[in-house]
Amino acid sequence: MNEHELDTPCVTVDMAVLEANIRRMAGLVGATGARLRPHIKTHKTPEIAHMQLRNGSAGLTVAKLGEAEVMADAGFDDIFIANELVGPTKLRRLVGLSRRISVRSCVDSIAGASMLSEAAVAHELMFEVLLDINTGLDRTGVAPKEARGFARSISALPGIRLVGVFSYAGYRPATPSPEERERWARREAETAVRVADELRRDGVHVSEISVAGTATAPFAATVPGVTEVRPGTYVFNDIGYARLGLCDPSQCALTIKTTVVSRPSRDRAVIDAGSKVLALDKRVVCGREPGYGFIKQWPAARIEALWEEHGVIRVTADGPGPGVGDVLDVIPNHVCPTVNLADRWYGIKAGVVDGEFTILGRGKSR
Amino acid sequence: MNEHELDTPCVTVDMAVLEANIRRMAGLVGATGARLRPHIKTHKTPEIAHMQLRNGSAGLTVAKLGEAEVMADAGFDDIFIANELVGPTKLRRLVGLSRRISVRSCVDSIAGASMLSEAAVAHELMFEVLLDINTGLDRTGVAPKEARGFARSISALPGIRLVGVFSYAGYRPATPSPEERERWARREAETAVRVADELRRDGVHVSEISVAGTATAPFAATVPGVTEVRPGTYVFNDIGYARLGLCDPSQCALTIKTTVVSRPSRDRAVIDAGSKVLALDKRVVCGREPGYGFIKQWPAARIEALWEEHGVIRVTADGPGPGVGDVLDVIPNHVCPTVNLADRWYGIKAGVVDGEFTILGRGKSR
Repeated sequence: MNEHELDTPCVTVDMAVLEANIRRMAGLVGATGARLRPHIKTHKTPEIAHMQLRNGSAGLTVAKLGEAEVMADAGFDDIFIANELVGPTKLRRLVGLSRRISVRSCVDSIAGASMLSEAAVAHELMFEVLLDINTGLDRTGVAPKEARGFARSISALPGIRLVGVFSYAGYRPATPSPEERERWARREAETAVRVADELRRDGVHVSEISVAGTATAPFAATVPGVTEVRPGTYVFNDIGYARLGLCDPSQCALTIKTTVVSRPSRDRAVIDAGSKVLALDKRVVCGREPGYGFIKQWPAARIEALWEEHGVIRVTADGPGPGVGDVLDVIPNHVCPTVNLADRWYGIKAGVVDGEFTILGRGKSR
Repeated sequence: MNEHELDTPCVTVDMAVLEANIRRMAGLVGATGARLRPHIKTHKTPEIAHMQLRNGSAGLTVAKLGEAEVMADAGFDDIFIANELVGPTKLRRLVGLSRRISVRSCVDSIAGASMLSEAAVAHELMFEVLLDINTGLDRTGVAPKEARGFARSISALPGIRLVGVFSYAGYRPATPSPEERERWARREAETAVRVADELRRDGVHVSEISVAGTATAPFAATVPGVTEVRPGTYVFNDIGYARLGLCDPSQCALTIKTTVVSRPSRDRAVIDAGSKVLALDKRVVCGREPGYGFIKQWPAARIEALWEEHGVIRVTADGPGPGVGDVLDVIPNHVCPTVNLADRWYGIKAGVVDGEFTILGRGKSR
């Protein structure tokens, strides 16, 4: 089937671009002393995880236990859950999963660590955990200056073994320059290494220092001591990252195909993809409001509003703009939530549909 | 199972509140001359659609053909697709659906109407359509002053029959007063009735004047000439509507149960529900930024940031705030995209889980 025959809206992935993106990151990280443990929350698709593993990845990162279960079912046996697991059902599920595969998770509270400890003891297991430190994102994680005290306070808990330091600092630059990106990456990585050194002085066997994402991974991987980096978005890229200079729009593998269903006025076109397809993520970058995606065929047009099932395009071109029935390709602002709204994506090779892939991790937020 | 035993994050619905909401709207509209054709995009769940039908609804409204197919499979035989259907696959599917049930859709372009016409003729069918008019939302729809000319220009097309006028004006008030709401509702409804009268003078048999949503339906239904109203959100309500004075928080039937997984600082708590569960819809109402939802147990706390799988709460209470392991109930800002992120919801009666319902229409954006 030709890609233009696909019913819309739908998710398509240029397989050549996807493969090039996977190889590029593998090459960048492979040239350093660190390993690549890609975050699968971007694609949630076992087939892509397998491509990443074939290209030198050392295990997977996931955000949720449910994603880990999907990937374990697909044959992956080394998974890091980059999150705190809290609550009795979660712990029951972690017990089950840890009997099948090698799995690690994070701790940043005495309460959370105690729950893990109790579950491990009750089931005669040993849970390996990474200490989550806050390197500036202000999400989860203990403050670096409190890491040593925290590690001491959980050191007596049976059933859990502290094996590493975990951090994610994100990337919110003031300017989209490579220098700022490197500074950002180094600041996070060096903080994690410093905390690890402090823990080691207290006798903790820190074997893992796990940091960074797509924007920072190639730099962070070069920092001595860092053992692994966890980029995710690089497989697809998106227009938010392109605006940061992290990629060219031609390196964005994923597009939403959408049909123009209405041309109610000269300057307005309406597509059949709204917030239930593209997601509402504006990803305002360096003060610029890019609208809700980038239309490949009409780069000057702006998706200025998303309703649930409609996207409203402000047509600024001199020409007539897209007509009713035209199929457009939209690169999303932030590809991760967009993928999570779809059940499947279509692989495209040279304009032809070459495979349909189920997003098995979609909606696995538990 | 007690509701507190549910794994989080998950969607729960208070069945008593749901039933009261359905009955209240049925009563309000039932007292007028108009019929209620509820929009199912809010719940996407056949069981709720059946509850609506049992409470006097005259058929269903959907946003997408895929939602119509789901509801047809569930036994519904009278569905209005409040949208333009464009493209060869859509038309093939419409042909199939129209052989099973009574289905109508919208037109607002010659191109779109011509496609419908050709498909109808090719399959010896007659498609009934409503003329979509723009009553101020500036999404789809022809301008009211151009409606008559547009209707004339499609009148010669075989296979389609113009049977009504369709409008959705939304509700973006400057102040949340009942008077403004009534004005807003009347403006939309009276415009639709005026357009319908113009079309009738040209010999069009307009039998349907279909307008309004949850905020405006009770008022619009009283406007002479209006034949049906299409509220959707009223089944669940949400905190966006509560802030508009449309309901009390106690009338919000749907909450997200979420667990506190981290308390990294005195003023910050992190929950396991992020944008992939709650959706990023801020629904800024009358200039107020409400954060990303309303926490029933901590009304003064604000969900100030949503990451994909984390919600960051700013704890402002004098007390200690929620602790790691606490389960919170969050009423979403905008319930419709929240529901579309979940596979199922749990019905709750007096604190006990009383049924698990599959959101069969989830993700049916095609």
